[in-house]
Amino acid sequence: MTASNARDVEICEVGPRDGLQNIGEFVATDAKIAWIEAEAAAGLPEIEVGSFVNPRLIPQFADIAEVVSAAKRIDGLTVTALVPNLKGAERAAACGVHKLSLPISVSAAHSQANVRKSPQAQVDELRAIVGLRDGLPDGRRFAVTAGLSTVFGCTLQGAVDEAEVIRLAVACAEAGVDDLSLADTVGWADPAQVRRVTRAVIDAVGPGLPVAGHFHNTRGLGLANVLAAYEEGVRTFDACLGGLGGCPYAPGASGNVVTEDLAFMFDRMGIRTGIDLDRLLAARAVLARGLTHTHLTGHLAAAGLPKVRGPGKVATV
Amino acid sequence: MTASNARDVEICEVGPRDGLQNIGEFVATDAKIAWIEAEAAAGLPEIEVGSFVNPRLIPQFADIAEVVSAAKRIDGLTVTALVPNLKGAERAAACGVHKLSLPISVSAAHSQANVRKSPQAQVDELRAIVGLRDGLPDGRRFAVTAGLSTVFGCTLQGAVDEAEVIRLAVACAEAGVDDLSLADTVGWADPAQVRRVTRAVIDAVGPGLPVAGHFHNTRGLGLANVLAAYEEGVRTFDACLGGLGGCPYAPGASGNVVTEDLAFMFDRMGIRTGIDLDRLLAARAVLARGLTHTHLTGHLAAAGLPKVRGPGKVATV
Repeated sequence: MTASNARDVEICEVGPRDGLQNIGEFVATDAKIAWIEAEAAAGLPEIEVGSFVNPRLIPQFADIAEVVSAAKRIDGLTVTALVPNLKGAERAAACGVHKLSLPISVSAAHSQANVRKSPQAQVDELRAIVGLRDGLPDGRRFAVTAGLSTVFGCTLQGAVDEAEVIRLAVACAEAGVDDLSLADTVGWADPAQVRRVTRAVIDAVGPGLPVAGHFHNTRGLGLANVLAAYEEGVRTFDACLGGLGGCPYAPGASGNVVTEDLAFMFDRMGIRTGIDLDRLLAARAVLARGLTHTHLTGHLAAAGLPKVRGPGKVATV
Repeated sequence: MTASNARDVEICEVGPRDGLQNIGEFVATDAKIAWIEAEAAAGLPEIEVGSFVNPRLIPQFADIAEVVSAAKRIDGLTVTALVPNLKGAERAAACGVHKLSLPISVSAAHSQANVRKSPQAQVDELRAIVGLRDGLPDGRRFAVTAGLSTVFGCTLQGAVDEAEVIRLAVACAEAGVDDLSLADTVGWADPAQVRRVTRAVIDAVGPGLPVAGHFHNTRGLGLANVLAAYEEGVRTFDACLGGLGGCPYAPGASGNVVTEDLAFMFDRMGIRTGIDLDRLLAARAVLARGLTHTHLTGHLAAAGLPKVRGPGKVATV
């Protein structure tokens, strides 16, 4: 239960990016940094600290360089940022971000709304970012994640063709990404679909490329979807402390899987996250101090930790 | 999506019992009946309509005979009631209840708090109730469910011995119950534990005895636990419309799995519940009218149904 480097799964906190992009109020730079520091201290191995998007489009991330700089001072933390295009990647690289995540919508309609490009044009952008990575000297290279979004459906387009998911996943793998993430941007995914699509993607890209899961809890199925993905071999999951999250260009998208509920589930299952749940719950208070108008959610925080800690009792039968 | 008798799983609404036993306000008899009628019209095959407990202990159920009488007029609905002991069973039988559920706590501490008996003494009570059933003429017989509670842990006692769960399950099977239910009364269960315990119980009692699952969403793991139990062979699940639920004698116990979120999950997975989700969501309004001080929860109701209905798209790859 104490923070540790021994992990069976990695939980990546994406609240400072996914959680804030949809919030009207500007969260002060100091508050963002305090939040990131509190979660890193609780044992989060990776935090997506913001987005290198045009600050006129999303003013929330106008201070991204300062936030990255502070996060990079935290020992052992992987500092990730979203980049919408090559230009953002160049800015992120200049700041020394460890990992860049490029969103690639499977839904053509969401892709236009989100990055004003077709999915295929966004794959071209991915290739350019991989080229940027490969041109850097050792020690300054960043990792590249392709964040496939609207994988399980899209409020703008409707159903999403699973063949198109596979085609884009393979294109990203061939472009040379370091890992791939499958996102249920609008909360339509169900566990059967998650199993089917995740297995098909892993089969298509091969075992050498890690596949992560990014689920929203819009309709309450977030943890069930995580469980299904875990059982298909996914070992990295995005989540948001206090259930923040949403997409400004995907109508109806709401809260991500709740970091503390997710960490609790794995902890009870005997699957090591490296996270100290008490310190993680304490980090909610740090987050809440920086948010004036936004309500945190989550079940664990409301109910508290059970008095018997750690994994459920091992079978004696 | 329309109400139907073709079902792969049965969802049993337990709100009128589990949801109301913990609520201070008395819900008017007419409101209880309207709620039951609305859910039956949405396609719920079974509703636990209340408890034949001493009304001085829980005044909420003082009108149980009247509620049962109204519920029995609904064509095709299985009308279930909780009975704490033989005396309650005799009252329930006199009212013509179709199915009686006797709670048997695996935790000795919870058993004392809940029914003032040891688990073993409650198994004796179960035998007496089965004897009552078997003494009735055909056509007046009720079914008997043993509701094993605190199966996955207990706020009063702490960890619960899984060997004791199996021992009690086998004792209930040998007593002649019609089915068995495994309840996570206080919301400590995790999916790995659910898989392990459910499998062990099914193995121990044999394939002829149906095993149901009763999960609370206290720490957000409710649907993940349902998924795990489903995949181990459980085909009947309790749930509460609007996330009501709790136990007056189990500190910290809170809301059951949310009926509409659960039905949505199965529906998306292509697992037939027979429930019309639009009518089920409409039943929330009927329920809400009868509750003055109690807040309904649930994700589906907040987010709404996705615009693409039915199961997630079938794989085309």
